[in-house]
Amino acid sequence: VIQASAPFVDLERLSLNQITLDQLSLEQAVEVCARAGVGWIAPWRHKLDGSIDRAAELIGDAGLRVSSLCRGGFFPAETAHERAHREADNRRALEEAAALGTSVLVLVCGPAPGRDLRSARTMVAEGIERLVPHATELGVRLAIEPLHPMMIAERSVVVTLAQAVTLAEHFEAEHVGVVVDAYHVWWDPDLERQVERAGQRILGYHVSDWLTPTTDVLAGRGLMGDGVIDLRHVRALVEAAGYQGPIEAEVISSELARGDPWKLMTRVCERYLRHV
Amino acid sequence: VIQASAPFVDLERLSLNQITLDQLSLEQAVEVCARAGVGWIAPWRHKLDGSIDRAAELIGDAGLRVSSLCRGGFFPAETAHERAHREADNRRALEEAAALGTSVLVLVCGPAPGRDLRSARTMVAEGIERLVPHATELGVRLAIEPLHPMMIAERSVVVTLAQAVTLAEHFEAEHVGVVVDAYHVWWDPDLERQVERAGQRILGYHVSDWLTPTTDVLAGRGLMGDGVIDLRHVRALVEAAGYQGPIEAEVISSELARGDPWKLMTRVCERYLRHV
Repeated sequence: VIQASAPFVDLERLSLNQITLDQLSLEQAVEVCARAGVGWIAPWRHKLDGSIDRAAELIGDAGLRVSSLCRGGFFPAETAHERAHREADNRRALEEAAALGTSVLVLVCGPAPGRDLRSARTMVAEGIERLVPHATELGVRLAIEPLHPMMIAERSVVVTLAQAVTLAEHFEAEHVGVVVDAYHVWWDPDLERQVERAGQRILGYHVSDWLTPTTDVLAGRGLMGDGVIDLRHVRALVEAAGYQGPIEAEVISSELARGDPWKLMTRVCERYLRHV
Repeated sequence: VIQASAPFVDLERLSLNQITLDQLSLEQAVEVCARAGVGWIAPWRHKLDGSIDRAAELIGDAGLRVSSLCRGGFFPAETAHERAHREADNRRALEEAAALGTSVLVLVCGPAPGRDLRSARTMVAEGIERLVPHATELGVRLAIEPLHPMMIAERSVVVTLAQAVTLAEHFEAEHVGVVVDAYHVWWDPDLERQVERAGQRILGYHVSDWLTPTTDVLAGRGLMGDGVIDLRHVRALVEAAGYQGPIEAEVISSELARGDPWKLMTRVCERYLRHV
């Protein structure tokens, strides 16, 4: 779906994870993607502006496909009431994913409400189990994304690929899988084995880079090539495991977000071709 | 070795990891420890001021024991020349540990010189292997400390307890073991199993706390009780595995280091008794 006017070639598999250009509206982000010749976009729910049909139309009219919807999850909560509220929201997320024409809902599983990681992790497993029937009905797959362990207290008690795959394996591979994000997993001494184990359950591959020093735990990522991750190695592992789907550039950076969005988009494309 | 004037009781197992009061000289830190009634201290090499005998005397005269020496390691390096240089320094670290009367040299294994984690990890294994004979001669045990994965690019390619134990298991337990630092390992979904597996190889237990948000990757730790780590749980695991040695408070915090050292020391003691 590359446009004739696209400044880059071989961008068929590249997807822009929308948070990379979080300063733009969905309409603006779609325009930038189409102009760059990227094949895919991964919208975030908070940018859909309440109108899923309009978002689907915008994206489709620009010739883009939706690689995943970000995000469901945040399962652990203090009270059953709050967990029920989260479940209802996750059901809506599944419906939005289906309406946007993507078969992948990314799950960021959420932190523990207190100090008890084990019970929080049980809540994650139970939360996923409760979503599977609705996901199955809608033809949307739940993609558990392990986050870097430095994000455990703010974003996710699921922090290793091994843990995510073990969680996913309680369900059929066509319903529950994992996302491999190089930024979140590159440090793992068990990476090679766990990516292989994930195999057909890999539902997405995300890229950015690890800056040294990292000055912001949540929004301190770098452009591919600016950091120390051996991105070619991680991609080779993911592809050897059988993944051939879109590759999302998800560069969460408060610094980069301050610059010109079109310049950032062209750099994302250049870096993707050179380093990913 | 609690002094009659000690304001706290039950501090026999508490050790002050010296970096907690990095603004003080060794002499000053020893004085603060003795005054608080702490049983142990864990000096850092850069604070020994070149004179090991004088340091040993200061510590012994104050009635303190040395729980460990921090640190050897930093094995991976670009060139064989540089690795030989590091090895010589690590041999000196072993000698210093022996002279200080501690049987534990903490190893912070170092980052990769480039993007190749696997070869850096091989350099770590080789580096440890080359130190074992000298360590054995001196009666000093090498204690591999896995660091939090967020420190991989600056401090250590050894980032999980599983990895550290696997490394240690290439050698006899009386020569090579591990340090369990709650701050570095609390996130690990495999923690319970790996602490049990470490068993008699646990040569040290370190405590501080994880702040939310964490604003500094290297020096953003909190006092025990100020964060979200279930410290009682981790201690119970470590003790169930057989560890009964000193417990080092290692609170690396640029913020706390700006305050009054004696006040900080009394807070460390209070928090140790209440939360560890």
